[in-house]
Amino acid sequence: MDYIKIPMDIEKKSFEIIGEEMEPHSFTEEELSIIKRVIHTTADFTYQNLIDISEGAIDTAKEVFKKGAIIYTDTNMALSGINKKSLEKLNSKAMCYVNLEEVFKEAKEKQITRSMAAVEKACKDNVDIFVFGNAPTALFKLKELIKEGKANPKLIIAVPVGFVGASESKEDLKELNIPYIRVKGRKGGSTVAASIINALMYMVVER
Amino acid sequence: MDYIKIPMDIEKKSFEIIGEEMEPHSFTEEELSIIKRVIHTTADFTYQNLIDISEGAIDTAKEVFKKGAIIYTDTNMALSGINKKSLEKLNSKAMCYVNLEEVFKEAKEKQITRSMAAVEKACKDNVDIFVFGNAPTALFKLKELIKEGKANPKLIIAVPVGFVGASESKEDLKELNIPYIRVKGRKGGSTVAASIINALMYMVVER
Repeated sequence: MDYIKIPMDIEKKSFEIIGEEMEPHSFTEEELSIIKRVIHTTADFTYQNLIDISEGAIDTAKEVFKKGAIIYTDTNMALSGINKKSLEKLNSKAMCYVNLEEVFKEAKEKQITRSMAAVEKACKDNVDIFVFGNAPTALFKLKELIKEGKANPKLIIAVPVGFVGASESKEDLKELNIPYIRVKGRKGGSTVAASIINALMYMVVER
Repeated sequence: MDYIKIPMDIEKKSFEIIGEEMEPHSFTEEELSIIKRVIHTTADFTYQNLIDISEGAIDTAKEVFKKGAIIYTDTNMALSGINKKSLEKLNSKAMCYVNLEEVFKEAKEKQITRSMAAVEKACKDNVDIFVFGNAPTALFKLKELIKEGKANPKLIIAVPVGFVGASESKEDLKELNIPYIRVKGRKGGSTVAASIINALMYMVVER
């Protein structure tokens, strides 16, 4: 058996390969650590040109994590991809409201998606970081609530994937004046979302 | 707010768009339902040419689900993406052993990945369907155990993603004489794995 068996060795080697195969770029080391982690998660090099990190987003994330962050995720899948040990070390907490009885009921009554109802609840809870890997409707909802002055998160990870609304949901983030990291276009997903949060945490805490 | 809010409408429309944008092909309706669901999950049309469904794999999956399947997943993320209502309707069960205390201990002692140790335990439990979205080492391990006559699953979903071993782990599946669905090359992942299992379940059970 000549394959590598130590997880950290596998990751290190993978990041080396990714670095060698990326197109020439002028990313900072920190930006690069996010982009490489997303490529590591997807084996899709197009992310090099799709990830858009707003000015100050990384510094904001580091500050928020240093104080202990409350993180909303739109799906259980994104939640389950977030490194729990790192969360704990950072006194941070990630939650997905989408399966709560309360959210089910609200969604049915209003004929909206569960993820939209979950956003409303998260805004009331003063979440620091919103993470969208799946649900454009949830991201649309957050944008509405921000414009109405009903939400003021510190950072938005905007990476819904899909063909109906996903791309549109990730536009016009700049005008909210809230730091964000997004994937332009249709691509993204729960694994991408989790890998971005993990990359940000690994900047602050030793694994 | 002019965006579509009903989840099933969004999915239906997405699948229509995917169908329109795919390259010409000769897939069966059932094969197509798997491929479209993976593209829906990733927004990555290259999967049209990367997914390889072995002869009889779909029929085997349908038979296994009709009897109630025990499913191994290599990560909690793949597990959390599998539709729990459909599992329940099919008297089926999906499990990820990777966080068990027993598996932690075994991995540390043998200096192997936790996912490899998890496979060993799953083989003892006579799992029907193995789902690999992440860990090539786990898939290598299963292949060894099959060759040694210590495992005989009914179906393998082989879609580890990555740069070290992932591609290689998905080769030579044919010689095992066990039906499989794989993604050729580096791509794949937990969301891809879950979407394949969901597509198979939706062939057998009304959502």
